[in-house]
Amino acid sequence: MKILLIGGEGTIGKGVATAFRSREQEVITAGRNSGQIQVDITQPTSIEQMFQQVGPVDAIICTAGTGYYGPFHTMTTDLMLPGIQGKLLGQINLVLIGKSYLNKGGSFTLTSGIAAEHPARNGTCVAMINGAVNSFVLGAAQEMVDEKRINVVSPGLVAASAERYGAFFPGYNLVPMDKLVNAYILSVEGAVNGKILKVYN
Amino acid sequence: MKILLIGGEGTIGKGVATAFRSREQEVITAGRNSGQIQVDITQPTSIEQMFQQVGPVDAIICTAGTGYYGPFHTMTTDLMLPGIQGKLLGQINLVLIGKSYLNKGGSFTLTSGIAAEHPARNGTCVAMINGAVNSFVLGAAQEMVDEKRINVVSPGLVAASAERYGAFFPGYNLVPMDKLVNAYILSVEGAVNGKILKVYN
Ligand SMILES: NC(=O)c1ccc[n+]([C@@H]2O[C@H](COP(=O)([O-])OP(=O)(O)OC[C@H]3O[C@@H](n4cnc5c(N)ncnc54)[C@H](OP(=O)(O)O)[C@@H]3O)[C@@H](O)[C@H]2O)c1
Ligand SMILES: NC(=O)c1ccc[n+]([C@@H]2O[C@H](COP(=O)([O-])OP(=O)(O)OC[C@H]3O[C@@H](n4cnc5c(N)ncnc54)[C@H](OP(=O)(O)O)[C@@H]3O)[C@@H](O)[C@H]2O)c1
Repeated sequence: MKILLIGGEGTIGKGVATAFRSREQEVITAGRNSGQIQVDITQPTSIEQMFQQVGPVDAIICTAGTGYYGPFHTMTTDLMLPGIQGKLLGQINLVLIGKSYLNKGGSFTLTSGIAAEHPARNGTCVAMINGAVNSFVLGAAQEMVDEKRINVVSPGLVAASAERYGAFFPGYNLVPMDKLVNAYILSVEGAVNGKILKVYN
Repeated sequence: MKILLIGGEGTIGKGVATAFRSREQEVITAGRNSGQIQVDITQPTSIEQMFQQVGPVDAIICTAGTGYYGPFHTMTTDLMLPGIQGKLLGQINLVLIGKSYLNKGGSFTLTSGIAAEHPARNGTCVAMINGAVNSFVLGAAQEMVDEKRINVVSPGLVAASAERYGAFFPGYNLVPMDKLVNAYILSVEGAVNGKILKVYN
């Protein structure tokens, strides 16, 4: 299987890439500055160029993107825009553009996060984005009738990010990377479709 | 109670306005062309002007806004933008701007919809918007620590819209207006906070 992994050099992306490579799958990583291919998912033309470079693939996984973290009291929609352009519309554009480059039988796997359901303090923007990505996938799965699947992995706080983010998520259980990575494997190699794969219960 | 109802002359808005007026509450309706006050929720300055005109209120309800309906296959993020500016960021701005005009003990009630969980064909954009609004409310409720509440009503297809929209929602149960309106009453006059009030089960 030829897998395109956007965000493949990030914390979660590295875990996902390692797992699929050890399963004898070909993984091509992409990122703005990191990875084998350069792409900025906030720019539809950049996404189009990436797919023209890479050609048809069997799976498209996105572990790229984030959103504004900060006090609700001083939040504005302007502060929310980069996350909307990136993690939200960027992932949507990966699907809307990428579906022409995804082989029959192939799959999309997007990434949302626990905040959709259990936002931490300061996490209202990210909650909004994650909820949007989850519901987008429910709709998209129904209409990709040409033998393509789509799922979203919703990670809890991963153990590998505990040092970087742990202080912002008091009382959140840490998710081991191998458990999280299994959700991506289930989405890519399994038969599931239109699922929000929550890895935090 | 002084209630500001944006979208108050729409199908659902009319039902909500009638109910609160029959409960001896003061209801001020707003809309782009309809209602007692003119506002375009896609424009933050217009929202600010509305609140300056209306002054402090005890409840802010929004039943305004919609999103793109159309085949997933030809959908683009450009087609999604008006809904993002309106029902999504418009409702968010009503909260971010409106919280300075909401009296202590007051409440916000936003509107999402069944598509967040059960999108119909052609409804992926609206699903995304509704999921975003739902999760936004979960985050916002936690951080409005100054005695203000926020909930979102998620309507199923209302009976009053059956003629207009019914053909697009085969197999969706119709929700009677009085049942739907009860969710708005629960949000405004009850004590609930941070709830997604689903009126479709
Ligand atoms: N870590 C967690 O505990 C956790 C929990 C819940 C949800 N999540 C979600 O999981 C996803 C991955 O998280 P992570 O911790 O692995 O993030 P990360 O370590 O910051 O990695 C993100 C990767 O995405 C790439 N990227 C960022 N913006 C991009 C853009 N506009 N275009 C293309 N590539 C871009 C970055 O590479 P370049 O800088 O080279 O572009 C980076 O390699 C995020 O959506 C995050 O919100 C993470
Ligand atoms: N009807 C249903 O069965 C149903 C089911 C699920 C969810 N919903 C949701 O419930 C909400 C209300 O639905 P509805 O059927 O009552 O809609 P509607 O009949 O179209 O009414 C919408 C109202 O909002 C106002 N409005 C629209 N855009 C606006 C803007 N940018 N700024 C200010 N006001 C604006 C309109 O008045 P002007 O034209 O004067 O601005 C109109 O009075 C929508 O979010 C809809 O998605 C409805």
